[in-house]
Amino acid sequence: MTTSPVSNPASAGKSAPPPADSRDRVSTMLQRLQDSICQRLEQLDGEASFQEDSWQRPEGGGGRSRVIKQGGVFEQGGVNFSEVWGDRLPPSILVQRPEAAGHRFYATGTSMVLHPRNPFIPTVHLNYRYFEAGPVWWFGGGIDLTPYYPFDEDVVHFHQTLKETCDRHHPEYYPVFKKWCDEYFYLKHRQETRGVGGIFFDYQDGQGSLYRGPDENGPAAEYSQAVGDLPQRSWEDLFNFARDCGDAFLPAYVPTVEKHRGDEYSDHQRQFQLYRRGRYVEFNLVYDRGTIFGLQTNGRTESILMSLPPLVRWEYGFTPAPDTPEARLYEVFLKPQDWVNWSHG
Amino acid sequence: MTTSPVSNPASAGKSAPPPADSRDRVSTMLQRLQDSICQRLEQLDGEASFQEDSWQRPEGGGGRSRVIKQGGVFEQGGVNFSEVWGDRLPPSILVQRPEAAGHRFYATGTSMVLHPRNPFIPTVHLNYRYFEAGPVWWFGGGIDLTPYYPFDEDVVHFHQTLKETCDRHHPEYYPVFKKWCDEYFYLKHRQETRGVGGIFFDYQDGQGSLYRGPDENGPAAEYSQAVGDLPQRSWEDLFNFARDCGDAFLPAYVPTVEKHRGDEYSDHQRQFQLYRRGRYVEFNLVYDRGTIFGLQTNGRTESILMSLPPLVRWEYGFTPAPDTPEARLYEVFLKPQDWVNWSHG
Repeated sequence: MTTSPVSNPASAGKSAPPPADSRDRVSTMLQRLQDSICQRLEQLDGEASFQEDSWQRPEGGGGRSRVIKQGGVFEQGGVNFSEVWGDRLPPSILVQRPEAAGHRFYATGTSMVLHPRNPFIPTVHLNYRYFEAGPVWWFGGGIDLTPYYPFDEDVVHFHQTLKETCDRHHPEYYPVFKKWCDEYFYLKHRQETRGVGGIFFDYQDGQGSLYRGPDENGPAAEYSQAVGDLPQRSWEDLFNFARDCGDAFLPAYVPTVEKHRGDEYSDHQRQFQLYRRGRYVEFNLVYDRGTIFGLQTNGRTESILMSLPPLVRWEYGFTPAPDTPEARLYEVFLKPQDWVNWSHG
Repeated sequence: MTTSPVSNPASAGKSAPPPADSRDRVSTMLQRLQDSICQRLEQLDGEASFQEDSWQRPEGGGGRSRVIKQGGVFEQGGVNFSEVWGDRLPPSILVQRPEAAGHRFYATGTSMVLHPRNPFIPTVHLNYRYFEAGPVWWFGGGIDLTPYYPFDEDVVHFHQTLKETCDRHHPEYYPVFKKWCDEYFYLKHRQETRGVGGIFFDYQDGQGSLYRGPDENGPAAEYSQAVGDLPQRSWEDLFNFARDCGDAFLPAYVPTVEKHRGDEYSDHQRQFQLYRRGRYVEFNLVYDRGTIFGLQTNGRTESILMSLPPLVRWEYGFTPAPDTPEARLYEVFLKPQDWVNWSHG
């Protein structure tokens, strides 16, 4: 968990090879993450438990999908682990990592989306993943929160927890990955962020690069400027960082669930939640890189689309009434904000 | 309405210019289509009426969006007319029509999606459109039906009506455009057609070409073989064909609404309809060229996404019980079928 950069100049521009047991170690870490999350969420839910489907992918690999439905807290939630390999990465990734072309690949990840029934509890998404292909390897992922009603203190707690985790690894991580998250989870056609963000990173190969290649939904040029601000890191450093990010989910989210699980809500509030869930669907099907990767690699459709909410509404021309909590969500929570220095209570 | 090919060999490979008033004529025809559809649907619905929003597009053009909600028949329906112009076509179209690059464009269309409340009445979609850009012009569009419960006779009537309209223009139109529709409205990740299809065509510029350029969701190679089977046609021929296709919607669909509007249905059947509506969302957001064009050209998001159903359900791992109407939908209606020669009653 050192924050000192890898300073071997010979490695500049080229990542050191991963340890010989890299795949086993990441895969084990990500399965443990799935286990610990499912265990705590079941306890929290109190009524429903996760049902597991194990599946194999004809082209190589497989996974275990776990779903909780119609629970005391969770209307639907999915926590998936998968580990796949094959002859070639799909075009959506090769355009980002051309060095991986012509090589067999390995990809593993744990991803989660929770749709609580109570509209005062936010939806939350987590995904951590690891790739190897020929000479290249990288870590990616993140976590982000999508509230339906604006409770400032919940969002501040969420971001503060992520910042503390990031800061233990490098002081630049939180500010850079928080911005990246705001840009990634953005619905251009709505001019809204998906929610209040969190952290997101991709292509972390230890060289300090933030971003490479064209990606319409990726960070803008200003973030690419930050390349070089991030330190060179070893595989071990990044492994530890990804593991700690995964472990930050429960402390970041569970207190908010416990706080709101007993809150009463009206039909109007429920309908607003169902309407806002439509944005989640729009983001996942139009923009999300993970979804596109899954569909392009002949992934397991039911596991990929488990992220979609159980019940969703669309309404032509909806706008929230002025001076309501719903309006405040749009005005404040669907724009990037400096949540760790928040004072608009 | 002649079916004889334009036989001037000098025009081979290059469309004749459109008439001087081409834009006005198509725009007027498509607005009349919107008017006649809305008038008849209001009468049919009996309870709700269409609300119109006129809008302008900052980059040029505008439209009129009409929505019916919470009606006696229609839970939600939208019928849009739009007419837009600008400096350049978006990449999704230029890859198909490279001759249009570097030219200003004009595009007009009428599109419609109806989501009835009763699960025994199918959802239906219609879109007819016309483009001009420098030296090129073309007509496109189609109509397709998405039943939730399998009533063979409704589908046969729908296809028979379309075939009769097509046959008045050319005997190859129905078989070719029916196949094109089956291929276009296909959800690869589900290995299902969206519904029972209808007709679809694009890039009809009078040269007899069916298809050009790469398009993952377009017709497969076998259809491209049919290039040359379609005749060369004049602008007038194609204008008349598009108009008649538009006029075929009401006789193809209205009898099915009248037949089922009083049918009682169970909550189970309603839930299945809401579940199947999820496929409509998946298709429109992941594959639909019209949606992508609209979002890429900074179109009016509310009008583009008016096609999304008012209420939708997703359910992890759902499969219909054997030997049920729901199973028959999957086994028979979500695969391409020869509906005009149907005998499986």
